Amino acid sequence: MAKNIKPRSEDYAQWYLDVIKAAQLADYSPVRGCMVIRPEGFALWEGIQRDLDRRFKETGHVNAYFPLLIPQSFLAKEAQHVEGFAMECAIVTHTKLEKDPTKPGTLRPAGPLEEPLIIRPTSETIIGHMYAQWIQSYRDLPVLINQWCNVMRWELRTRLFLRTSEFLWQEGHTAHETAEQAQAETLQMLDVYADFAEQFLAIPVIKGYKTESEKFPGADTTYTIEGLMQDGKALQCGTSHNLGQNFAKAFDIKFLGRDQQQAFCHTTSWGVSTRMIGATIMAHSDDEGLITPPHVAPNVVAIVPIFKTPDEKAIVSAFIEKILVQLVGADEVTAAAKRAGSDIASFFFDKATGQKIVVDWRDSRPGDKQYHWEQRGVPFRIEVGPRDVAGGVFVLKHRLDRAKAITNLTDVSPEWLRGILKDMHTKLLDRARAFRDANTTVAASYDELKSIVSDKGGFVRCFFKPDRAAEAKIKEETKATVRCVPLAQSGQKGKCIYSGEETDVEVLFALAY
Amino acid sequence: MAKNIKPRSEDYAQWYLDVIKAAQLADYSPVRGCMVIRPEGFALWEGIQRDLDRRFKETGHVNAYFPLLIPQSFLAKEAQHVEGFAMECAIVTHTKLEKDPTKPGTLRPAGPLEEPLIIRPTSETIIGHMYAQWIQSYRDLPVLINQWCNVMRWELRTRLFLRTSEFLWQEGHTAHETAEQAQAETLQMLDVYADFAEQFLAIPVIKGYKTESEKFPGADTTYTIEGLMQDGKALQCGTSHNLGQNFAKAFDIKFLGRDQQQAFCHTTSWGVSTRMIGATIMAHSDDEGLITPPHVAPNVVAIVPIFKTPDEKAIVSAFIEKILVQLVGADEVTAAAKRAGSDIASFFFDKATGQKIVVDWRDSRPGDKQYHWEQRGVPFRIEVGPRDVAGGVFVLKHRLDRAKAITNLTDVSPEWLRGILKDMHTKLLDRARAFRDANTTVAASYDELKSIVSDKGGFVRCFFKPDRAAEAKIKEETKATVRCVPLAQSGQKGKCIYSGEETDVEVLFALAY
Repeated sequence: MAKNIKPRSEDYAQWYLDVIKAAQLADYSPVRGCMVIRPEGFALWEGIQRDLDRRFKETGHVNAYFPLLIPQSFLAKEAQHVEGFAMECAIVTHTKLEKDPTKPGTLRPAGPLEEPLIIRPTSETIIGHMYAQWIQSYRDLPVLINQWCNVMRWELRTRLFLRTSEFLWQEGHTAHETAEQAQAETLQMLDVYADFAEQFLAIPVIKGYKTESEKFPGADTTYTIEGLMQDGKALQCGTSHNLGQNFAKAFDIKFLGRDQQQAFCHTTSWGVSTRMIGATIMAHSDDEGLITPPHVAPNVVAIVPIFKTPDEKAIVSAFIEKILVQLVGADEVTAAAKRAGSDIASFFFDKATGQKIVVDWRDSRPGDKQYHWEQRGVPFRIEVGPRDVAGGVFVLKHRLDRAKAITNLTDVSPEWLRGILKDMHTKLLDRARAFRDANTTVAASYDELKSIVSDKGGFVRCFFKPDRAAEAKIKEETKATVRCVPLAQSGQKGKCIYSGEETDVEVLFALAY
Repeated sequence: MAKNIKPRSEDYAQWYLDVIKAAQLADYSPVRGCMVIRPEGFALWEGIQRDLDRRFKETGHVNAYFPLLIPQSFLAKEAQHVEGFAMECAIVTHTKLEKDPTKPGTLRPAGPLEEPLIIRPTSETIIGHMYAQWIQSYRDLPVLINQWCNVMRWELRTRLFLRTSEFLWQEGHTAHETAEQAQAETLQMLDVYADFAEQFLAIPVIKGYKTESEKFPGADTTYTIEGLMQDGKALQCGTSHNLGQNFAKAFDIKFLGRDQQQAFCHTTSWGVSTRMIGATIMAHSDDEGLITPPHVAPNVVAIVPIFKTPDEKAIVSAFIEKILVQLVGADEVTAAAKRAGSDIASFFFDKATGQKIVVDWRDSRPGDKQYHWEQRGVPFRIEVGPRDVAGGVFVLKHRLDRAKAITNLTDVSPEWLRGILKDMHTKLLDRARAFRDANTTVAASYDELKSIVSDKGGFVRCFFKPDRAAEAKIKEETKATVRCVPLAQSGQKGKCIYSGEETDVEVLFALAY
C-alpha cells in the first residue's frame, strides 16, 4: 500500500489531496486560494481542451478572447437584474506601483482608478456589451462564440481543482434569432458535455435540469451533467444555460428581424472548468494513487528497464528500442534521441494528441520507478529485464486492475497499444457506471431519503415536486440537494416524498461537492 | 480601391487600424487599453499557438499554469534586484463588491486585502518562487516549462495587438545545471522563434542580441528576432533571455550538484505574444486589406456562387459540391450539411489545423461577397457562375497578387490546394525578404545613418561600439535604436559610426514599434 497516500476508506478528503500531491498535479500558491497547475496536471487540462475544442468546432463554434477586467458598473447592471448575484471577486483599484518612501525596499499601490475594475468572475456582462454592438440584424445571427480563459471568484474555502479562487474554464456564449434555436443550442451543448465526459474521461453522467432554487439565477433553465464520485457525493461536471431574453434585455442585445421589427436575441451560455480534473481524479483513482483515463493520459506507457551490469543494460536497451520502433516508428525514435536532455526519455506515440511513451533511465531502483509511474496513473507500464529479453517478451502491467501479463514482442504494434487503451477506457467507464448504478437508490418517503443519504450515500431517486421552501428545508435537515431532474423520466406518477402530493417528476437528491 | 481602408502611402497608422476593422480582427473594449480579440483575429492566435506549441513540445518542453495574481512583496524583491523594473500594473486591493448604500443601484469595493496583489506583468517572480521549492537536486534538472496566459501592463498609449494593457503570450521558463546548458536553451528557442516566424507566418527575421541598454534588465543576454514592417519600422517579434544566475539568486533557486555542493541554477526565459498578429498584418497586407499567410489562415478558400434564378442556383450549387467533395471528401460535405446553421457554410479542409473552406450563400451581391473575403485576407477565392459550370471550370482568385486563373474542376484535389497554398507562402516570404533586403542600407558615418533613418527608413547596418551614452544620444537625435547585433557578422573591422573607434561589431539601427 502506498505510504504517502491515505486510503479512501479512512479519509477520502485527505486521500484526494495525497493523490494530487503524489502525482504532482498541482500545488497551492503563495496567493491564498489560487493553485499552481503543475505540468502533469496541466497535461490533463490540455487533453480536455483538445477534445472539447474539437467538439465545439465540429458544432460550428469559434473561439474569441474578451478582456480580463470588467467595469464595476457592468456588474452593478447584472446585480440589479439578477438576484443572488455573487459579490466575492477581486477588485482592481490602482494602476501603478511606487517605492514606498516610508518603508525602504517596499512598494505601494498608486495611480487610483476612477472606476474600479473587476477580474471577471464570468464574462457574461462584457460579452453581452460587445454582442449589443456586433449584432444588428438577423443576418448576424447566430453568434456562436466560445472563450477559453481564467476566471476568479474570491472563495473562502478552497480545494485543489474543485474550488479555487482562480480557475481555468471555457465559457460558450451564443445568441439566436428564436427561442427554439436557443433551446436546441442549450441541449446540443449538454449532449456535447455528456458525450465528452463519458467517451473522453470515462465518467458516466446524468443529464438533467436544475430546479428553480439550484439554477443559475439569470437563466430560464439550467441543464447539468452530474457525476457520482467514489465517496458517494455528486459533482456537477458542466452546465448549459438557456438564458432566454434575460441577458439580451439587460445588455440591450437587439436585432432587426425578418419582419423588420427590433427584437431581443435569445442567448445561451455553457461552461466546463478545471473542476473536471478533480472529477476525473475522484471518479477513477485508487488507494495506490492516480488512474488516468487513457484518452487524457499524457503518457500512455512507462517503460522501466531492469539491469545490473552494463552488459545487461545494453541488452535491455536494445530490446526496448525494438519495442519503441514497433510502437512509434524508427523516425520518432531517432528524433527523440536528438531531443534527449533528461534521464526520462520520451517518444510521441500520437503527434495529434501529444501522447507519449516514456522510458525511465533514471539512476534509481526499478521498484521506485514502478511506484513513481503507478502513482502518476500511467495506463500501462512495461518492465524489461535480461531474462525477458532472452524469451522475446516483457511484462505488461495494467494500472487499472494492477494485473500483469507476459507479452510477446511480436504482438506489439500501434494497433495493439490502441486496442488495450480502448479496452481500458471501456473497463473504466463500465466500472464507474456499475458503481453509480449500485449507488443509486429509490426512496419512497422522506424518511427513506434521510436514511439513504446518511448511511449509504449516492444518488437518491424519488418523486418530488420541486419547491424552493421544501428544498431549503431538506438541505437544512440532510445537507442533500436536488442535483437534477433527469431528462430520462419514467413517465410514471407517484407521491412527492416531501409534500405527499401526486407528481410525475422524479429527481435525484445527493450530497454534493 | 477599398473605400473603408486608408492607403498605406497616405497614413500607415490609420491603414493598420482600418485593416483590422475591415477584417473584424479586434475591437477596443470598454476598459481602456484592453482589446477584444474577435473570432477572425483569435483564429490567428490559435494558429500561432498550435504551431509554436508543437515546436516547444518537440524540443522537450511541457506546459503548466501559474496564478494570475502575484503578491506585491514578490515584485518588491524583483524591483530591488532589477533596475529599470516597470511599475505600471493593475493592482488588486479588495475582494468583495457590496451595494453602496449612499448611491442606490451601484456597488463599491469592500473586503480590503492586507497585502495588495498584482496582476502578472510576467510570471518570472511567482515561477521563481515555485522553482525554488520544486528543485532540490541536479536530478530535478532541467526544468523546461512553458505557460500560455494573459498578462497585464498598464500602458498609456495603446495600439491593437502591438501594445495593449492586457495581452496574450507564452512565457517559457527553464532552469539548468550549467551555464552552457542555459545558453544552448536560449539559442535553441531563438532558432525556434525564427523558424516559426519564417516558415509559419512568412515573416523574415534577423536573429541577434540586444545591447546592454536595450536588453531585459534581469538578463545576462537578451536575444531577439527583428522583423521589418512595410513602413520601414522594425518590430521585435520575440525574445529569448539567458538570465544567468540572476533570478536564481533573487529567488533562491538552488540545487545539490553532482559534487554534493549547493549551487544556483542557470535560468532562461523566452516569449512571444499577440503582438505577432500585429506583425503578421503589417508585414503582408495591402491597400485592399488583410493578407493572411496560408499556414495561419483559418479559412483557406472562400467560394462565391453567382446565380440569378433558382435553376442557376441549383446548377452552381451542384458544381460547388463537386469542388468540395474533391477537396474535403464526401463525408465532410455530409457532416458540414448537418452542422449548418449559418448562410456561410464551412467545411474542414484540415481537421488537425482546423483550417476551413467556406461557401458564401448569403443573400447579397457577389461583388460584395468577393470584397468581404478579400478584406479578410482569405488566400484563395473561387467564383462559380452558370457559364463556368457549362465549361467545367471556375475562376480562382489569388489574394496575394489579385491574379485570376480559369481552373478546371478535374485539376482540383487536396494536393492541388496544398500546392497553391505552399506556393503562396513562398511568394509571401520572398516578397517580404526582398522588401527587407531592399530596405537594409549600410551607413559608413553617423550623418549617413541620420539621413537614411529620416528619408528611406528600414534597417541601417553599420559598425558601432555598443555604448549606453552613445545609444541614448542617437535615440534622442534620430529616434532610432540598435535593434540588435546580428548573429551573422561579416568578421570585418571598421570604424564605429559614432565614436570613430575601430570595432568588429556591426549592428542594425532602425526606428521601431
